[in-house]
Amino acid sequence: MRTVTVAGAQLGPIQKAESREQVVARMIDLMDQAKAKGADLIVYPELALTTFFPRWYMEDQAEVDKWFEKEMPNAATQPLFDRAKEYGMGMSFGYAELTPDGHHFNTSILTDKTGRIVGKYRKTHLPGHAEFDTERAFQHLEKRYFEPGDTGFPVFRTMGGIFGMCICNDRRWPEVYRVMGLQGVEMVVLGYNTPSVNSQKGEEAGDKRIFHSNLSMQAGAYQNSTWVVGIAKAGSEDGHPLMGGSVIINPDGEIMAQAKTEDDELIVHACDLDDTIFGKETIFNFAKHRRIEHYGLITSQVGVVVPPEK
Amino acid sequence: MRTVTVAGAQLGPIQKAESREQVVARMIDLMDQAKAKGADLIVYPELALTTFFPRWYMEDQAEVDKWFEKEMPNAATQPLFDRAKEYGMGMSFGYAELTPDGHHFNTSILTDKTGRIVGKYRKTHLPGHAEFDTERAFQHLEKRYFEPGDTGFPVFRTMGGIFGMCICNDRRWPEVYRVMGLQGVEMVVLGYNTPSVNSQKGEEAGDKRIFHSNLSMQAGAYQNSTWVVGIAKAGSEDGHPLMGGSVIINPDGEIMAQAKTEDDELIVHACDLDDTIFGKETIFNFAKHRRIEHYGLITSQVGVVVPPEK
Repeated sequence: MRTVTVAGAQLGPIQKAESREQVVARMIDLMDQAKAKGADLIVYPELALTTFFPRWYMEDQAEVDKWFEKEMPNAATQPLFDRAKEYGMGMSFGYAELTPDGHHFNTSILTDKTGRIVGKYRKTHLPGHAEFDTERAFQHLEKRYFEPGDTGFPVFRTMGGIFGMCICNDRRWPEVYRVMGLQGVEMVVLGYNTPSVNSQKGEEAGDKRIFHSNLSMQAGAYQNSTWVVGIAKAGSEDGHPLMGGSVIINPDGEIMAQAKTEDDELIVHACDLDDTIFGKETIFNFAKHRRIEHYGLITSQVGVVVPPEK
Repeated sequence: MRTVTVAGAQLGPIQKAESREQVVARMIDLMDQAKAKGADLIVYPELALTTFFPRWYMEDQAEVDKWFEKEMPNAATQPLFDRAKEYGMGMSFGYAELTPDGHHFNTSILTDKTGRIVGKYRKTHLPGHAEFDTERAFQHLEKRYFEPGDTGFPVFRTMGGIFGMCICNDRRWPEVYRVMGLQGVEMVVLGYNTPSVNSQKGEEAGDKRIFHSNLSMQAGAYQNSTWVVGIAKAGSEDGHPLMGGSVIINPDGEIMAQAKTEDDELIVHACDLDDTIFGKETIFNFAKHRRIEHYGLITSQVGVVVPPEK
């Protein structure tokens, strides 16, 4: 048994007017609850410190940059790091990162039980668009405000296991889990801000959105025999609803814990990293079964090339 | 609308003593039912013509070769081809293929509405083992009797759409759907013979097995915005139970039809190939979103390489 008790800390909505300090106070409250439940690791959502600002169209780069963090930890988040260290609890959360040399990423970090940052990941699959889109019910401007991540999908040895991260839309892409699976990942932690309605297909709402999210994460877990922890920012941000349904998924692809509200809510599960072994050694023993000579298009071709018409 | 009405023709058990002629008569009966329901395409399982012989350990190659077809169509299957041509119905089924130069493959074919073979696929991901395994509850000797397929994952233009195939264990590997997705696949047809119990984990039975099967196919459908038709050989073959649950899955990953028995059973659904367009043009617009520069391990590395211990 290599048990890591994970607390998934779903955040309810964060309004545009809320400060980072207000949000960090909520995050610390969830951390206190997690400590009471014996958590070794707490996982917060993508862009945990602010509202999901990519729904707002902005032209002034100075205005955009106010949503970004120039260092981590910083004054607003230091209390969170201090509390995690005091509790001996690892943590992961997402934030908008502005690097010293001016790059903008949608980033997440992982800390060990001493509060030290041991892993950083920058979101690879940016959904949405870069220019104002009159066809959509609402905007989703991640391609405007962020660059695609430059980290790839590294894994990190910490807390007695092998951990990886991805962020939001990354979870829909099987390549993400596979690249980490090929490095032996035992737990993937990720956060998301997913609108409750498809901006390009109004009739696709609630249940269908959660189904797609879970389907992708459950398949990623099963097919790589890894734990997956997917944590939402949920509820209505300035009138824009985000789905909840945060989950902890076992290496068999089964949902072991799931959030019930669209508010700040903790889900907790004792995850045995040794539960990953059976799948990795049998049906998904990659060394025995994968046939990379037939996978070439996956890395040689970005988009679709259909066969010629006869 | 580009509607292809698909009949999924689940087969109940085929005992070791049953002849190909007996099985083909059952397949023709299902085809008659499919015609009555207006089917354009009928899909049968993997190794449709015989029992799932890889559960039997054999050392005599002549005995092994009796389970293989040296040509297709042949005398036993010609009536099936004739009926399909008469009905103007496409079909797909699996069989053990022995090539003129002595290679053994687990193969499936696709015919157009004139009964002409327009596509052939040879199974890539062979599960199981090559030598008698005393640790297993029963044998699964696909690695003994077959070579890994040499076709890759081609797609075929026929019946007004773009079709692909895979077989049984292939369906658990996301690479399979993705390689076809990168060629614009609109419908993947596949068959399987899946034991109702995990030979290496006796307590994993029925429901869990169907859950894993559906999870993999539904994720493959959704993540590539393609129809997936997965058809079982089901029921007890000489005392060895195979799971049923044949399904037709839409490009949103939803199950539209599902078999209820473990016998010969037809499931039918009118599949609109245009339902694939929305997903392919939005969330899974590969050209806009995929980042192949970070997928390298998928094609460069077969097995797991864990990060070094610190």
